[in-house]
Amino acid sequence: MGTTQLESVPEPKYWQLRTALTEALDSEFSVGEILPNERDLAARFGVARATLRQALEQLELEGRLQRRRGVGTTVAPPRVGVAVGAEQHTWPGAADDAWLPTDCVLAPPPAAVADLLETGRDEPVHTVRRSRTTHLQPVATELLYVPRRSVPALPAIDTPSGTARARAVLRELQRLPLDGQDQSVELGSAGAEDARELDRLPGAPVLLVTTRFCTAGRTAAVSMATYRADTCRLTFGAFGGVEIHHDPQRHAS
Amino acid sequence: MGTTQLESVPEPKYWQLRTALTEALDSEFSVGEILPNERDLAARFGVARATLRQALEQLELEGRLQRRRGVGTTVAPPRVGVAVGAEQHTWPGAADDAWLPTDCVLAPPPAAVADLLETGRDEPVHTVRRSRTTHLQPVATELLYVPRRSVPALPAIDTPSGTARARAVLRELQRLPLDGQDQSVELGSAGAEDARELDRLPGAPVLLVTTRFCTAGRTAAVSMATYRADTCRLTFGAFGGVEIHHDPQRHAS
Repeated sequence: MGTTQLESVPEPKYWQLRTALTEALDSEFSVGEILPNERDLAARFGVARATLRQALEQLELEGRLQRRRGVGTTVAPPRVGVAVGAEQHTWPGAADDAWLPTDCVLAPPPAAVADLLETGRDEPVHTVRRSRTTHLQPVATELLYVPRRSVPALPAIDTPSGTARARAVLRELQRLPLDGQDQSVELGSAGAEDARELDRLPGAPVLLVTTRFCTAGRTAAVSMATYRADTCRLTFGAFGGVEIHHDPQRHAS
Repeated sequence: MGTTQLESVPEPKYWQLRTALTEALDSEFSVGEILPNERDLAARFGVARATLRQALEQLELEGRLQRRRGVGTTVAPPRVGVAVGAEQHTWPGAADDAWLPTDCVLAPPPAAVADLLETGRDEPVHTVRRSRTTHLQPVATELLYVPRRSVPALPAIDTPSGTARARAVLRELQRLPLDGQDQSVELGSAGAEDARELDRLPGAPVLLVTTRFCTAGRTAAVSMATYRADTCRLTFGAFGGVEIHHDPQRHAS
């Protein structure tokens, strides 16, 4: 019966190859090792180059392989658990914050953010740019949108932009009572600027995390963060990171 | 200065094309509309087919396009917010659970799950398979691993597997006090079985959500869920889904 089912829904060739490659990675290669070139790999497994590339892309999505310009394809280390969940209920910039502010400008946000903030579409808001690193590697970039009404006591003139301005906005934000926050996670591709900061090519898969901070029934700030999907596992919850490796070949039977 | 920087890091052609295509999607096409074929599109934008395909893949990652066999490439509807966060602190199978149990077997789990559950690697655990649909579309599949110690009062023999068995396991689980849970989200590719259930090709990008349920300082159950990355936006938190569209072209300046 198993055979009949297998025949009626044949697995695509790249998927079979992916499975064979996974086994080879487990048994023959160690983390950081450079894979043989595509021609040799295709010859070894008796497949076309296009099929090989598809299988390599799968393994990149799964975080098993890294492709880097000028280096080649290497065996990736396990993904790093990055705490994202908002259990602490603190504002961005609180004492234990993992983010580093790098810039701040006053500019109209994207229309969707303006709608969330209930600011007019042309109304400039404080836009704090921050970055996050883990083990000296850039893992995420963020744009934090703060409407002027959320930081009314912000000094107006002395530092109009830059890191000092970013710190001032974050400091003022702490004065507000934080009622709560919600988040969403979705798949995206890195824009040119984010890609540069994250040391990826434009269009690389990323995990997009949107966080909305609420005070007095209104949105006080919106964070839009871009995490590297190849190296990050986003963790939520009080118990800390779940250290577990997904295997898409798993079966219940 | 801006120009110098732009010249030193030129945007790849597929990324420029992606931006042009996004604008065309916004202004000329509506949701569900079928795009012209690749040859015509490549001619219109004056690019090679390979470049066009790269840009189309970007837009698929971003959830703007859907490619379906026998239909072609269509403009995707906005992603659906799917509540994933464990704020309710309830066991799987509680009254308002969005998941439908479809099967249950007793089998050794993947090694990583066995380690989390602190069961022996060869020890069989109850493995409940569940599925989740939104607007009649399959959005996720799940394997829920429940060690026998978590459901000691489960009747032993009468229904050894199947939906009835799954319901019995979930019902017994409710008897335990739930101390808390944590979660992680990462990018993956759909295995053959999940792909079939989710109506995708094997290797399609998916969001993998691992949830660990704890009782009395131990892991009482582990859920490994696979969400379609093309149609789902995972939401966490008390405020409900964040309705917002990420634009990777956004700039802070």
